[in-house]
Amino acid sequence: MSSTIGTLFKVSTFGESHGKGVGAIVDGCPAQLELTEADLQVQLDRRRPGQSKLTTPRQESDRVTILSGVENGKTLGTPIGLFVPNQDQRPADYQAMAEIPRPSHADYTYRVKYGITSASGGGRASARETIGRVAAGAIAEKFLMQRYGVQIVAFVSSVGTITAGAVNLESVSRREIDATSIRCPDPAAAERMATLVAAVRDEKDSVGGIITCVVRGVPAGWGDPVFDKLEARLAQAMLSLPATKGFELGSGFAGTALRGSQHNDPFGAQQAALTTVTNNSGGIQGGISNGAPIVFRVAFKPPATIGKSQATVDYSGRTVLLEAKGRHDPCVVPRAVPIVEAMTALILADCALLQQAYQHLPTQR
Amino acid sequence: MSSTIGTLFKVSTFGESHGKGVGAIVDGCPAQLELTEADLQVQLDRRRPGQSKLTTPRQESDRVTILSGVENGKTLGTPIGLFVPNQDQRPADYQAMAEIPRPSHADYTYRVKYGITSASGGGRASARETIGRVAAGAIAEKFLMQRYGVQIVAFVSSVGTITAGAVNLESVSRREIDATSIRCPDPAAAERMATLVAAVRDEKDSVGGIITCVVRGVPAGWGDPVFDKLEARLAQAMLSLPATKGFELGSGFAGTALRGSQHNDPFGAQQAALTTVTNNSGGIQGGISNGAPIVFRVAFKPPATIGKSQATVDYSGRTVLLEAKGRHDPCVVPRAVPIVEAMTALILADCALLQQAYQHLPTQR
Amino acid sequence: MSSTIGTLFKVSTFGESHGKGVGAIVDGCPAQLELTEADLQVQLDRRRPGQSKLTTPRQESDRVTILSGVENGKTLGTPIGLFVPNQDQRPADYQAMAEIPRPSHADYTYRVKYGITSASGGGRASARETIGRVAAGAIAEKFLMQRYGVQIVAFVSSVGTITAGAVNLESVSRREIDATSIRCPDPAAAERMATLVAAVRDEKDSVGGIITCVVRGVPAGWGDPVFDKLEARLAQAMLSLPATKGFELGSGFAGTALRGSQHNDPFGAQQAALTTVTNNSGGIQGGISNGAPIVFRVAFKPPATIGKSQATVDYSGRTVLLEAKGRHDPCVVPRAVPIVEAMTALILADCALLQQAYQHLPTQR
Amino acid sequence: MSSTIGTLFKVSTFGESHGKGVGAIVDGCPAQLELTEADLQVQLDRRRPGQSKLTTPRQESDRVTILSGVENGKTLGTPIGLFVPNQDQRPADYQAMAEIPRPSHADYTYRVKYGITSASGGGRASARETIGRVAAGAIAEKFLMQRYGVQIVAFVSSVGTITAGAVNLESVSRREIDATSIRCPDPAAAERMATLVAAVRDEKDSVGGIITCVVRGVPAGWGDPVFDKLEARLAQAMLSLPATKGFELGSGFAGTALRGSQHNDPFGAQQAALTTVTNNSGGIQGGISNGAPIVFRVAFKPPATIGKSQATVDYSGRTVLLEAKGRHDPCVVPRAVPIVEAMTALILADCALLQQAYQHLPTQR
Repeated sequence: MSSTIGTLFKVSTFGESHGKGVGAIVDGCPAQLELTEADLQVQLDRRRPGQSKLTTPRQESDRVTILSGVENGKTLGTPIGLFVPNQDQRPADYQAMAEIPRPSHADYTYRVKYGITSASGGGRASARETIGRVAAGAIAEKFLMQRYGVQIVAFVSSVGTITAGAVNLESVSRREIDATSIRCPDPAAAERMATLVAAVRDEKDSVGGIITCVVRGVPAGWGDPVFDKLEARLAQAMLSLPATKGFELGSGFAGTALRGSQHNDPFGAQQAALTTVTNNSGGIQGGISNGAPIVFRVAFKPPATIGKSQATVDYSGRTVLLEAKGRHDPCVVPRAVPIVEAMTALILADCALLQQAYQHLPTQR
Repeated sequence: MSSTIGTLFKVSTFGESHGKGVGAIVDGCPAQLELTEADLQVQLDRRRPGQSKLTTPRQESDRVTILSGVENGKTLGTPIGLFVPNQDQRPADYQAMAEIPRPSHADYTYRVKYGITSASGGGRASARETIGRVAAGAIAEKFLMQRYGVQIVAFVSSVGTITAGAVNLESVSRREIDATSIRCPDPAAAERMATLVAAVRDEKDSVGGIITCVVRGVPAGWGDPVFDKLEARLAQAMLSLPATKGFELGSGFAGTALRGSQHNDPFGAQQAALTTVTNNSGGIQGGISNGAPIVFRVAFKPPATIGKSQATVDYSGRTVLLEAKGRHDPCVVPRAVPIVEAMTALILADCALLQQAYQHLPTQR
Repeated sequence: MSSTIGTLFKVSTFGESHGKGVGAIVDGCPAQLELTEADLQVQLDRRRPGQSKLTTPRQESDRVTILSGVENGKTLGTPIGLFVPNQDQRPADYQAMAEIPRPSHADYTYRVKYGITSASGGGRASARETIGRVAAGAIAEKFLMQRYGVQIVAFVSSVGTITAGAVNLESVSRREIDATSIRCPDPAAAERMATLVAAVRDEKDSVGGIITCVVRGVPAGWGDPVFDKLEARLAQAMLSLPATKGFELGSGFAGTALRGSQHNDPFGAQQAALTTVTNNSGGIQGGISNGAPIVFRVAFKPPATIGKSQATVDYSGRTVLLEAKGRHDPCVVPRAVPIVEAMTALILADCALLQQAYQHLPTQR
Repeated sequence: MSSTIGTLFKVSTFGESHGKGVGAIVDGCPAQLELTEADLQVQLDRRRPGQSKLTTPRQESDRVTILSGVENGKTLGTPIGLFVPNQDQRPADYQAMAEIPRPSHADYTYRVKYGITSASGGGRASARETIGRVAAGAIAEKFLMQRYGVQIVAFVSSVGTITAGAVNLESVSRREIDATSIRCPDPAAAERMATLVAAVRDEKDSVGGIITCVVRGVPAGWGDPVFDKLEARLAQAMLSLPATKGFELGSGFAGTALRGSQHNDPFGAQQAALTTVTNNSGGIQGGISNGAPIVFRVAFKPPATIGKSQATVDYSGRTVLLEAKGRHDPCVVPRAVPIVEAMTALILADCALLQQAYQHLPTQR
């Protein structure tokens, strides 16, 4: 049930980190979108391990193959099959963990749920599972850009207690963000973040962080009332990512401290449409986009798998000291940036198609 | 599309605040659950307007009728139709707003989306829409309690900048919570919160707050990998509520500042099962419940509709001063407590049925 | 799960024949469709019992109320709640059947599935359940007519072994069909059918029949490849009706006897579009409408509830003679005509919205 | 949208006949089912082209690879990715058809729908698309057999006007059926059918046929009321297969000629459960299985692609004579037997999981 998302732009992922590979089917991309594997590879490269010293040294090139749904560089309107083979597995690293569930990882809950333990411990609870999302998200992004001019930009806004300074959400670009390996557009903060991550890595420990995402160019009217509010769907999408602990839109938790008279976004007029003067709403009102940039933040916990010694118990209940083997990220946020963008694109492409479906009958006067 | 939630325990709501009434269909409640209208009325009464001086003075008794799916006090396994008629409408209060979209409300986005403006302005973006959720949630809750012993308790943990002291999540009960009209189990904080809400109300302004929810008794194994992670579904459910701006599980945003070695929840052994010694995970690991209490927090913004004068523009773009009419809550969190509980119950009942469906084949040795 | 149909034009029904009433929620009807209760009543009146001597004498006026989703005679784009109260119940008629499952009815299977027996025996397996479908279908039909000019006409093409002569599918109208109470547009056959039904009724027996449905005005391109082929969805919709045993499209079962060279529909050209010279395809090729009239047939068995004495066993396995009480139709096809039309409209409205959603990007030369 | 089927046992297929290959994802198979590629290959071999002189000479070995979801010969509970590469394509055969839509094929409707024409003409409307269904169906079948002892057997009951004699539905087996290449268990009829197919093939023409399917061992209680009646879901599944024109359950169209007193299946008692003495119901009553064998029939038209010359028009409307190139089946029913079995298994596996999910609360006395 759980491996499919979307009503009209529908993505199903598959694959374990220790099997033949990982992939996805994208069902519902409109026909005649120009698309090549290179379009997908860009974001996969931003996601892949081993891209900088701040990430896991695991080396996988993560080359994607399009299995179906595209001919002569154009989508056919049929399901687009995507596949990325696994390469650099070291099952031996995981053997110890067959008997000891990693604290705060999914080893224990998967074993309870399925009565079986896969080679990787936590089954699909692996960063590798996000490859299918990123590849699929790149398709959604291209569709959104081409038909609507939508731009999605995510960046690291904090690592541990180090926080980026003010970022211009109207202009911030992927080029600025990729200027540092930590993917924070405030260069001074980026440097301190990188130093922290390196230190944490050397201590065989890990650290958490926050990603901010801004979406520009979404027209007013996307999203639905009640259960499928746009922010509700974004929240689901973000909390479905490994290691996430929180989501907030616009003013978020801090906004709860304000008065309505401070928090409300007054309307102004710009040409035919109305716009908001401020954006505490984060671009969404009543579950529906209002034309302002959509802005939200996602909290990522420190990765659970650490080399540092931890006192815990094995499956038989015996107290043990665990020093996890394996090559893991000391901090997930730099690599999570394209993943957040991908999930955002998947939700928005679905909303775009839904809005197209439901356009109202002509207003009569 | 948007008015249905759940895969197996499926709820569809309907109704505007200015039409004949509001209601829901619950499709998927197992047969032979003992159920009467009184079971639903308890939570509807905790939600209804006019229950204290801290809420809107709008008076509606919100009596629910079961239209189908129950005979002789037992569910039949067929869809349970629920209906609550509207009573105390004052359309005149809304007439001004026909020309002026309320800042940070859904009036503008609904008009753009549907090309039409309903009598209430924001269509389904009304607190009244949550009645169907609360009635349906009460059914889910009874099912969860009866079959699994699950207990769901939500409470107000902050209003504006006033925050409740430590609350014992193992024991906190609805009785304690309902001891104050603000629904905060810390009596000292509750009193200060109530004073603040009264002051804000008298200023014709509004204020935000945070609700914490704890769920006890969920067995390990509920929830699914990838897109339907338990926390992802809870996040969607909570962000689908009117006025919500954020969701966090366990350690949440604060947890991003920690090291993995601080944040990880070591396992301990208790009888046959493993338990976690701490609960930064908030009871969920890899999207699947681990048997510890599920703990999350939801941010509610200050209500958008305020009597205080606001500078904004009308639909023609002309600058106006808006002093909203109508009888609105100065702070939604006290009434939102049963709504958060209802949404939690709906998600968990669905997960319970899914887990029952997918039980694995017998492990062979 | 089972009480909802449709992906975008989504209908959920509820209600037992012996409870407060029956109804439906229509979620996904575009905004600004002109709609009143009178629009729905027309088809409900064609469906209701007691309309002629050939149907059950049970008297119910079946007046529908719109509970939500419509204001000032126009749809709001939000869920449309529909309700029809039950009136003329005679529970005593059903008491005997509490201990004896009716042969070929759903009494036994419902008891096994739900472990409980509702007052009506077979729970939702009641002709009355179709009221929600007919009311919802009338909305779909109005939408299809208004936006696309789609016309849906069903009629009785056989009763027992009496078969209608050739019917002009390009022109046959509801007016012609309603000219006889049996709803067959061949007057001579209609008379013989009516005589047969009256005779069967007098013998306390029942008889089956076939309904043909033609849909004119569906543009080429509706429907989807693979699992949601248009004919597959129509087949599901028709076989979901009580008492149906078969579905065939175009040439149907008889077409299996032909050679490809006889069966294939050659293309001809008409203005810009291609058309088929013959229509063995029944208007659908590869799951997608081709612009020709859609033509299919639905088989209805003789109703299971008959007054004639039947040897069977009760729930304890004891042999009994059952003479069913109750006021039942000797033949369902006359009243099933508007039900077949309704289900057709629901599927097509969904396909129309899907097609609108998925329109391809511009073809570049 | 269209390439996914199932609520809990969920299958998504992908792939064109002229791309890299075809495949499927099976999401929702319970964990710990023993499964190898050999389990799937058996049915793929029964489906593959070139297996006898009665089928297309196209040679493809159709070897399946399991990409994910299985480790050490057991399912993990996670999505099972399946892939079969394409081998023997001859795109030149299809070039002529780029300008001439084949009569009664999907070339024209796909072009209208997607604005693009794939190399194979009709995109996914290819027999090859059914490979993913057959592979997925083999998994469903193994699950159904292992947990419930369900047996699914389909066979050819007619080709053209040649009809099989009486077949013992209680005992008919795949071994009997595979004894002839036409897959009809009546040897005399089988021989005449084979002779007919060979003659039709030599005339470069094609012929239709009917497949009967019987399912033994389904317990009473599977299936759902209203829209997801078991027969409705089977009808959708069967009409979703290429070249199908009709579906009938039990007595089917012929049953419409009977009186209720003839058609009704009286109950008898057998041990604790009730059974029906006859089986006009085809094993399903009110949408729910009653424990008797499920029996249905599916009509397949003569294949549309024939070498015989046909007068038609090209896309520009010009009259042409088309003699289709390519290596096509003169009659699809022998190869469709395992496909019908696969679709049946997919629907029943889904119903089995649904029934497990919804088991009722204990009956109290």
